[in-house]
Amino acid sequence: MGVKMWKCLNKEYIISNKWLKIRKDSILLPDGTKINDYYIIEKNNVVLVLALTSDLKVIIKKEYRYPIDSFLLELPGGTFNLDKETPLQVAKRELLEETGYTSDNWKKIGQFYDYPTKDTNKIYIYLASNIKKVADQKLDITEDIEYSFVDLKDIENLIMKGKINVSGSVAAILMAMKIIKNP
Amino acid sequence: MGVKMWKCLNKEYIISNKWLKIRKDSILLPDGTKINDYYIIEKNNVVLVLALTSDLKVIIKKEYRYPIDSFLLELPGGTFNLDKETPLQVAKRELLEETGYTSDNWKKIGQFYDYPTKDTNKIYIYLASNIKKVADQKLDITEDIEYSFVDLKDIENLIMKGKINVSGSVAAILMAMKIIKNP
Repeated sequence: MGVKMWKCLNKEYIISNKWLKIRKDSILLPDGTKINDYYIIEKNNVVLVLALTSDLKVIIKKEYRYPIDSFLLELPGGTFNLDKETPLQVAKRELLEETGYTSDNWKKIGQFYDYPTKDTNKIYIYLASNIKKVADQKLDITEDIEYSFVDLKDIENLIMKGKINVSGSVAAILMAMKIIKNP
Repeated sequence: MGVKMWKCLNKEYIISNKWLKIRKDSILLPDGTKINDYYIIEKNNVVLVLALTSDLKVIIKKEYRYPIDSFLLELPGGTFNLDKETPLQVAKRELLEETGYTSDNWKKIGQFYDYPTKDTNKIYIYLASNIKKVADQKLDITEDIEYSFVDLKDIENLIMKGKINVSGSVAAILMAMKIIKNP
């Protein structure tokens, strides 16, 4: 039996705002079964930046995440609407706003899905090398961010110990490490 | 300025079914700003299994993902409700149902969040070594899965080329590679 596609019979938006759209679809499965309430979550896309200083330190941000009531260590980045901006524009803006750093050396190193059973959003990963401080932090009202510098050689250890534990940041860092070691 | 927490003023469930709960919270930010419609998505938790044969091949599944209308390569696994089963029970069951394989050697290698700006769910990662075929596939109605075996030495290459591009699977595989190389 080969892998087959599903047919969409109807789409209905039940939530639609700037940050989130939720759709209830009616679907016909390949075996003829009909599902009347398959929910699809259209979140904004995500950009993550591995920002590296000339002496090989990585910026790690610490931010409060309300849904899980915890402070998490992640790469700098943010969410955006693909219709309005390119991922690279967002990567540059978010790094500057969250940390005050910028770079002349940007390289796209990957593109992921997060939870494609329900979600449509993508994650775009950039490596910014030889970063320089050019401004102060400039945060959104919901952002309360601290950042620190971690030696590149120590960052895998933080992941293996579970200190950095968001799948996008873990995937991005481990991919970037391979590119930095074998450019 | 230190990183501060948010205060929940009210919670209201607007969707609540077996697979998905969506909450609309009213929130007080540390600076006194009130947000009346911060949506939180309570999806089921996820288990992923890196299943390794005695001759160092990894099971990769190919499954149709309706929200993005694409076939993706991922690790075997599934979603579950933490109140009813342990992650290890789910890991064993999903590997058996999706592939017909089982193992006597299970090791938890990581635990992630996916999109903690909005989502509460966790991803649990297990390494199953010396797997053995003991049954046929036994799939759910919404599952249409093919699996194949990839040499462990080739799997990082699939990631770097973007052929495996779901953040949880990428993070899990790259972490597992480090543990397999340095057990």
